Amino acid sequence: MRAVAILGSTGSVGRQALDVIAANPHRFKVCGLAANANVGLLAEQAKQFRPAVISCGSETHAAELKSSLDPAVQRVEYGARGLMEVAVNSGAEIVLAATDGLVACRAVFAAVERSIDVALANKEIAVAAGEPLFAAAKASGSKILPVDSEHSAVFQCLAGERREDVLSIVLTASGGPFWEYPLDKLASVTPAEASVHPTWSMGRKNTLDSATLMNKGLEVIEACRFFDTSPNRIEIVVHRQSIAHAFVIFCDGSVKAQLAAPDMRMPIGFALAYPDRLDEPVALKPTRAVLGLAGHSSLLTFEPVDDVRFPAIRLAYRAAELGGTYPAVLSAANEEAGRAFLQGKIKFVDIGALAAAALDAHDAQPASMPNIEEADRWARSFTRDAIDAARL
Amino acid sequence: MRAVAILGSTGSVGRQALDVIAANPHRFKVCGLAANANVGLLAEQAKQFRPAVISCGSETHAAELKSSLDPAVQRVEYGARGLMEVAVNSGAEIVLAATDGLVACRAVFAAVERSIDVALANKEIAVAAGEPLFAAAKASGSKILPVDSEHSAVFQCLAGERREDVLSIVLTASGGPFWEYPLDKLASVTPAEASVHPTWSMGRKNTLDSATLMNKGLEVIEACRFFDTSPNRIEIVVHRQSIAHAFVIFCDGSVKAQLAAPDMRMPIGFALAYPDRLDEPVALKPTRAVLGLAGHSSLLTFEPVDDVRFPAIRLAYRAAELGGTYPAVLSAANEEAGRAFLQGKIKFVDIGALAAAALDAHDAQPASMPNIEEADRWARSFTRDAIDAARL
Repeated sequence: MRAVAILGSTGSVGRQALDVIAANPHRFKVCGLAANANVGLLAEQAKQFRPAVISCGSETHAAELKSSLDPAVQRVEYGARGLMEVAVNSGAEIVLAATDGLVACRAVFAAVERSIDVALANKEIAVAAGEPLFAAAKASGSKILPVDSEHSAVFQCLAGERREDVLSIVLTASGGPFWEYPLDKLASVTPAEASVHPTWSMGRKNTLDSATLMNKGLEVIEACRFFDTSPNRIEIVVHRQSIAHAFVIFCDGSVKAQLAAPDMRMPIGFALAYPDRLDEPVALKPTRAVLGLAGHSSLLTFEPVDDVRFPAIRLAYRAAELGGTYPAVLSAANEEAGRAFLQGKIKFVDIGALAAAALDAHDAQPASMPNIEEADRWARSFTRDAIDAARL
Repeated sequence: MRAVAILGSTGSVGRQALDVIAANPHRFKVCGLAANANVGLLAEQAKQFRPAVISCGSETHAAELKSSLDPAVQRVEYGARGLMEVAVNSGAEIVLAATDGLVACRAVFAAVERSIDVALANKEIAVAAGEPLFAAAKASGSKILPVDSEHSAVFQCLAGERREDVLSIVLTASGGPFWEYPLDKLASVTPAEASVHPTWSMGRKNTLDSATLMNKGLEVIEACRFFDTSPNRIEIVVHRQSIAHAFVIFCDGSVKAQLAAPDMRMPIGFALAYPDRLDEPVALKPTRAVLGLAGHSSLLTFEPVDDVRFPAIRLAYRAAELGGTYPAVLSAANEEAGRAFLQGKIKFVDIGALAAAALDAHDAQPASMPNIEEADRWARSFTRDAIDAARL
């Protein structure tokens, strides 16, 4: 029985993780759950999975939660302290970090420092704080397992291989909803149009990031951290079907790929059960179909990525090469700009422009946790100011 | 420096192996070479690579060879004894078995029994004698490494994985030259038409076996031996581009694939250098192109295999399920029938019919080496008799 704590249990990844756990009751128990404001769902989850520690966003929410649970059995916490309690004082053997932004960054760090394993779905933490986080894991022996399908794919392809034999890592991108959209109409894309993903079912922020391809850009930075490599070893190819999630190219010309139908439960289950594999081929039927194993033909396409249409790609490589606090600035500026777009305040094409402006204006700092948090604050404030200035 | 002996050095795989060795002089030395009748090429190879032991098919050839080499430095042998000397008395650390039929079977066995590693390209040995051969390797600790691109692919996909997590193994087939050929014209196919492979450059026997898809059938049996599994765990899918060589499907719904442009030097180099990978991406440029990494789009197709058009597939599964000496009978009958087709004695569609007749007529025996050799002889004689009877 592996004790799992989930930070962000009411989000898309958190809910799918609980599906995986519910399907494998002999293998996992839930010891801690943390969410922000969706107290109704959190209370339901707490009743079903009986974790010892539960945390929500605010004191008000905590009071609401307490009234619907038995506080003698389940401890209710809130805020930053609550996240920390769920991560390090719930008895977790593995913490699934599936929150947004950097809200759970300190809690994840604390888990890593205490040698607790982390399944890291929280892209912003990997991007902004990856340098110190992976250094801390190396020092403590904590394993940080990828949950993104692409990084899970790379991780699987690297099993039994030696890092020095790796020539490059190729992440696939679906291309998002605007891959073939008329270029001159990209400026007038609506939030609703940017919130529909062609192949994956994800949270709203990830879906928007897939439309700008910033998602893929941030994954390049994430891959540098997870696989301890430089951005010039990471490539992107557009693969509309989202079946092949990554390639690893070896020095002898051999390529390994990991494939699966687009279903997040596969990489989530992989990370939680590692080094075991769950006996639950959730996505096998559609995967077999696209591999020509279901009685009909199929095809997989691969296209070069268009970084003129999608400037996020070039911004991400730039931030990855600059290092230090630049990835934190890119991630934070993108999050603020994305929120403003979804609120109808800016155009779709402004998201990349605002992220570029933040990188241009930033003063480099080494990637320590205080510097990263400061860069995050600065980039958000800089981006909000730029949006407000443009609206005046 | 790894000492390599090659059985079948003048054949397609043997010559490509020497290309790989010549390109990696710091890593490999050739200690033994064996061939049959191509004495001219064998002498050239012997002069270039300076092996201590050289063997050819007959005493006459050996005399011819001796006259062009310095017998004080290089020992010349011939026949079965010569193959044995090259395999076990040349100082080989790894023996590449790239002969045809069962001619080198005893020599390969002897190498395995002496704990010498074997790179096994000789499909007939794996198919006919796989059961006792892999048992011998288990007992001696000798590693038998696959050289076929499909089995090399499976082997690579299994690295770092646990066998109990494997749901099934999928071998890809190019479909050969007659995949879309009019069914009613298959009977009148000429040897020349059947000797052209759409994607691979191989020897004539393998090319014909790819046209009947017997090649793929035999590979199913081979996969059972290499990966110690039953035929119901092996699947075939047609993949015309010959880029993805195999898939491994795991119990959690994840699939791993190995890909490379069709160039035998990749799997040959992999087997010879294992567990290292050679720093020589021979096939990387075309592989990058088909993965969409060379500035233009690409696609990979996957189709169900047609075992009505290609009865060899069903025959191979039948032989694999029956086990014992049946795989030896299938392999030998197919080889004899294939030879008769290339000599213009029978029709293309008779190859499968003759192999089926041999399986029908065979009396099962356990797969011991004497039984296998006897079944091989019986099947060849049975098939030749059937061909002669039909021509009277």
